[in-house]
Amino acid sequence: MGTVPLLDDDDLDPRAKAVFDDIRATRGTDFVNNFWRALANQPELLEATWHRLKQVMAPGTLDPVVKEMIYVAVSAANSCSYCVHSHTASARAKGMTDEMHGELLAVIGAAMQTNGMVTAMQVEVDDEFSV
Amino acid sequence: MGTVPLLDDDDLDPRAKAVFDDIRATRGTDFVNNFWRALANQPELLEATWHRLKQVMAPGTLDPVVKEMIYVAVSAANSCSYCVHSHTASARAKGMTDEMHGELLAVIGAAMQTNGMVTAMQVEVDDEFSV
Amino acid sequence: MGTVPLLDDDDLDPRAKAVFDDIRATRGTDFVNNFWRALANQPELLEATWHRLKQVMAPGTLDPVVKEMIYVAVSAANSCSYCVHSHTASARAKGMTDEMHGELLAVIGAAMQTNGMVTAMQVEVDDEFSV
Amino acid sequence: MGTVPLLDDDDLDPRAKAVFDDIRATRGTDFVNNFWRALANQPELLEATWHRLKQVMAPGTLDPVVKEMIYVAVSAANSCSYCVHSHTASARAKGMTDEMHGELLAVIGAAMQTNGMVTAMQVEVDDEFSV
Amino acid sequence: MGTVPLLDDDDLDPRAKAVFDDIRATRGTDFVNNFWRALANQPELLEATWHRLKQVMAPGTLDPVVKEMIYVAVSAANSCSYCVHSHTASARAKGMTDEMHGELLAVIGAAMQTNGMVTAMQVEVDDEFSV
Amino acid sequence: MGTVPLLDDDDLDPRAKAVFDDIRATRGTDFVNNFWRALANQPELLEATWHRLKQVMAPGTLDPVVKEMIYVAVSAANSCSYCVHSHTASARAKGMTDEMHGELLAVIGAAMQTNGMVTAMQVEVDDEFSV
Repeated sequence: MGTVPLLDDDDLDPRAKAVFDDIRATRGTDFVNNFWRALANQPELLEATWHRLKQVMAPGTLDPVVKEMIYVAVSAANSCSYCVHSHTASARAKGMTDEMHGELLAVIGAAMQTNGMVTAMQVEVDDEFSV
Repeated sequence: MGTVPLLDDDDLDPRAKAVFDDIRATRGTDFVNNFWRALANQPELLEATWHRLKQVMAPGTLDPVVKEMIYVAVSAANSCSYCVHSHTASARAKGMTDEMHGELLAVIGAAMQTNGMVTAMQVEVDDEFSV
Repeated sequence: MGTVPLLDDDDLDPRAKAVFDDIRATRGTDFVNNFWRALANQPELLEATWHRLKQVMAPGTLDPVVKEMIYVAVSAANSCSYCVHSHTASARAKGMTDEMHGELLAVIGAAMQTNGMVTAMQVEVDDEFSV
Repeated sequence: MGTVPLLDDDDLDPRAKAVFDDIRATRGTDFVNNFWRALANQPELLEATWHRLKQVMAPGTLDPVVKEMIYVAVSAANSCSYCVHSHTASARAKGMTDEMHGELLAVIGAAMQTNGMVTAMQVEVDDEFSV
Repeated sequence: MGTVPLLDDDDLDPRAKAVFDDIRATRGTDFVNNFWRALANQPELLEATWHRLKQVMAPGTLDPVVKEMIYVAVSAANSCSYCVHSHTASARAKGMTDEMHGELLAVIGAAMQTNGMVTAMQVEVDDEFSV
Repeated sequence: MGTVPLLDDDDLDPRAKAVFDDIRATRGTDFVNNFWRALANQPELLEATWHRLKQVMAPGTLDPVVKEMIYVAVSAANSCSYCVHSHTASARAKGMTDEMHGELLAVIGAAMQTNGMVTAMQVEVDDEFSV
């Protein structure tokens, strides 16, 4: 259970409906996942979030699958279960193989490990890293 | 200042010295950054950490620059200042352009944003995401 | 399932029972939620936590509903599912409307987003912010 | 030092300059803080971030000072030093008194404390909290 | 459900099987918990993680039960539900009593509380703490 | 610089002065570190925090040095620089040797590493862990 209801297609106000239409058109599927159904309770927030996310996650200098793997990494560090699930599924849909997933897990683990040790030692930043 | 001293090359025990030699050989530079100088107080931990990190960050299915960007993303989510500095520098050294950096920042920001909103709404995981 | 049992009213030692009585009197309801039933395994910790929380969350310069929304925000950032649920319910009981909830979600999202980008850029603090 | 340069007014491209003009007009001050000077390296990201933040933090059902205090709370939980500094300054500028600040600190502390204990006990969510 | 399948003993490749054999021999039980069954999809990562963890958690200057309690504390701060469950069980198996658990919860709570307040106040580090 | 001033002994109100006296008597030193000088701006919060912390960190079933190491672990996971510094100093004052510190760092690192990997894989909790 969540802290807000998940809206069915019949419950949407017009602004939310327009966003759902764009999600479906952009992704080429009728499936709209629960995040958007929860956010649909707040149409303005839904609109702003979807439009920004659509732009950020579009192909750019970085490949979309790379963007999804970065998204999974941040979500794991923040312990967002839903986000890990949804963006791992997206990464797979965009081409992440089991081998790539294994390397992603290894990098997340290594980064978390040294994050903890560096912070516990409060290591001073080297002058060589200045821009 | 840190919670452990940073060791100079002259302070190293033989196991730590061997690791520093391997760091220099692997990276092709005489520069050894402060993380390793702090960890050198614990030679066994230094050895295990370096050997694992060298393996995890080596070229694989994922490009080394992608691995460094994932590392930066985790470090930003965990608020590890030193790690953000050192791995942003590594990412640049391995080919991250300003444009790629901008996209990395945008994805980190979007992921953090939706992590917070999803967690605040406690959205249930869709059945469609099951493996 | 949890890592400690949830205690029924019949299982409480006298110190825990006294705290439950005060929770019920303070809130004007017979319902005592699971957090306190878990903490009741440690009567001293239960007492200290309840007495402090009762004081901190009481009306002050800040309105109780504002305090509950701040509590939800911290709990979302820390990814504490139970805390998000219980304090969202408390916020609603103390007057948080759907519109206020929507604004809370938007601020949490914006704060998380810029937290991630600022940390990734390691922005120096402006002198103008000094107290 | 940061991982990107801080841009002076003379270094801005036209899109970034337009954002700086809007920041100055909106806030009624010539001062533009370092976050925006860092983000100005990525004009599109600067634009999107500023326009969204301006909207989210504007007066709504919640008072702007309440929004700033929520922002500080999230930033403290995420350990974003810069964000804590900048939004504490904003909260003060919008009317946060020392007494309100003290209550904010107390709520942040209490929330963090119970977040940790609840997560360590893995307390099950009460049915009563369902929406 | 997870983002990777949990492997049965019959699904393991030879490297994963060897790790499972070592887990069983080291722990003196036939039970292998789900973490290893999930990681078994990536045999190299499974091997490296198990061998390191076995070494780190072995008796040293610190008692194994102390190491497990530290592990629980980190896992609670990072909101890793599975890790809290598995390492609380390990701590109990290695001698953690209810009273020790209560003190662990109290320290986690106090640390989280002051972490939040210190970060919100951005307290400067005392010179007296330098090494 | 912090977000609140650090109070000198001459600036304290009577309640804060009484707490400082108790800190000095309890610790057997004239030195009062900056955390308390920052918190002294809010005498009620100072009192409640000190009295609780004094009780939680006192010798119990767990040795005070173990409690300080758990405190450091939580503070590292939460990236609280000041807390890492102050509680590492306290742990050393209460008997933590370099070897114990090395083992603490190793456990923090291992816990962070598996926290990240477990969360990224969303491993289901084993029935065997139920209490």
